Amino acid sequence: METIAILAYAASGFIEARKRRLDPIGTFLVALATAFGGGTARDIMLERRPFYWVEHQEYVIVIFVASFFAPYVLRLISQVISDRALLIADAIGLGLFSVAGTSIALDAQMPAFISVLMGVTTGVFGGLIRDVLCNEVPLLLRDSRPYATCAFVGCWLYLLLNQLNVDSIYSVLIATGFILVARLVTYKFDVRLPH
Amino acid sequence: METIAILAYAASGFIEARKRRLDPIGTFLVALATAFGGGTARDIMLERRPFYWVEHQEYVIVIFVASFFAPYVLRLISQVISDRALLIADAIGLGLFSVAGTSIALDAQMPAFISVLMGVTTGVFGGLIRDVLCNEVPLLLRDSRPYATCAFVGCWLYLLLNQLNVDSIYSVLIATGFILVARLVTYKFDVRLPH
Amino acid sequence: METIAILAYAASGFIEARKRRLDPIGTFLVALATAFGGGTARDIMLERRPFYWVEHQEYVIVIFVASFFAPYVLRLISQVISDRALLIADAIGLGLFSVAGTSIALDAQMPAFISVLMGVTTGVFGGLIRDVLCNEVPLLLRDSRPYATCAFVGCWLYLLLNQLNVDSIYSVLIATGFILVARLVTYKFDVRLPH
Repeated sequence: METIAILAYAASGFIEARKRRLDPIGTFLVALATAFGGGTARDIMLERRPFYWVEHQEYVIVIFVASFFAPYVLRLISQVISDRALLIADAIGLGLFSVAGTSIALDAQMPAFISVLMGVTTGVFGGLIRDVLCNEVPLLLRDSRPYATCAFVGCWLYLLLNQLNVDSIYSVLIATGFILVARLVTYKFDVRLPH
Repeated sequence: METIAILAYAASGFIEARKRRLDPIGTFLVALATAFGGGTARDIMLERRPFYWVEHQEYVIVIFVASFFAPYVLRLISQVISDRALLIADAIGLGLFSVAGTSIALDAQMPAFISVLMGVTTGVFGGLIRDVLCNEVPLLLRDSRPYATCAFVGCWLYLLLNQLNVDSIYSVLIATGFILVARLVTYKFDVRLPH
Repeated sequence: METIAILAYAASGFIEARKRRLDPIGTFLVALATAFGGGTARDIMLERRPFYWVEHQEYVIVIFVASFFAPYVLRLISQVISDRALLIADAIGLGLFSVAGTSIALDAQMPAFISVLMGVTTGVFGGLIRDVLCNEVPLLLRDSRPYATCAFVGCWLYLLLNQLNVDSIYSVLIATGFILVARLVTYKFDVRLPH
């Protein structure tokens, strides 16, 4: 699941980088920032070390190699994996990263609202950096389809289940599943936040 | 005073977010980054924890709730509070944040020039992030009206008073007042830096 | 050498700031971010303190003073120093910062690939922040001329020499020299990465 989530985030970095016709190193950096930006921001805020990507340099190497073949990788992705599969993979990433971020913040004795906020940050910050690097107003800020909102509600759900002493594995699974489903359902029915 | 400063900064985030027609979550994140970005950058540089907004989650919650009513909040602001009041509130924020930042950096044994720089950072970094997120060249960098400059001079004044062993409360008040007045006076008389 | 590298990076910040007609304070902040952004990002990731510019505030003061005379400084630069000299100075900076970054990361027990990545970050992150602040897609990401790539290969060379127990001074010099020459040669012959 984790691997799916990281690769889905990296793929969204690849896609954005292709649109901007970045060179391989640029593609690599954007994909890296998208995949690990959220967790790194959270770890800096919580003073946690080592970073996830420092402990799992195999992901970094895979993304690095893929960056040199980005055109082929993207053609492969678009042939083998449908847009829908990418959307689902991204939603899994959003769920997993957000809930994991909330859980880590709670362990670090953060208060409830802050923990949820750090969870959402973990889920969405990578995409935000991606868009800033590519010189766009972050999609997150202007797209009124619920994205951070789904993560936000799901993190509160996790907190609630945690308070109810639900077993940690179940509460992670339920909250992640909720975010996944909420994201897909609101996307499918084109639910919009007012703005 | 502190509450005024934080809310003034958050309000400038709201205004910018409205211009860009961001959704509620986008508005929230931009307002949050504007209000707490400067202090957070300083705390990361000085390795201070917990962050201010972690200890005072009530501000975060107020900004969150207000984000969902941003159109009404802004209409209310524009009716109840004049542009001049907003300008004054922002100038209070600039003064208070900059002087507090300088004082904290000095306590952390930073050398004089660096302390002043960290003070200015505390005062202006939030607005800078706001503009980067909204995909603009930061106002701070291109507006030639003295803004960071007022903070810069005021922080040196604070340092001087500190050296003269003026009581800490007075030196904070005098330096903050100086920045406030300098900002308002140079604004009113449209003083410009050469560029 | 270090002084040359820092001033070269600061100069590239000045040039970009002039293009955007930033005011003195804006020029100062952009030049500062360009010169010290890379090392600061690395130090935040490695939890190293104090920052280089905190220990060497003389550089900060020089850049500050120069910012107020940026038009004259730039005219002077363009008269005294040719474009080629600036290119060479920047390439020295790229080499020196990247190799130093790799060496510091290795000392902090980072694994090989990560150390190289942190070295490259040290070399290129300043320019990236400069472009984000000036609201451009970072040159690094879209210019297909090898820049980060030269740093990347040179950092691996440093790692290799290190493994072979080559004396530390020599391996730094050889790797820095390699990056310098690789950058200048690929620039001169207009080598391009595919994209």
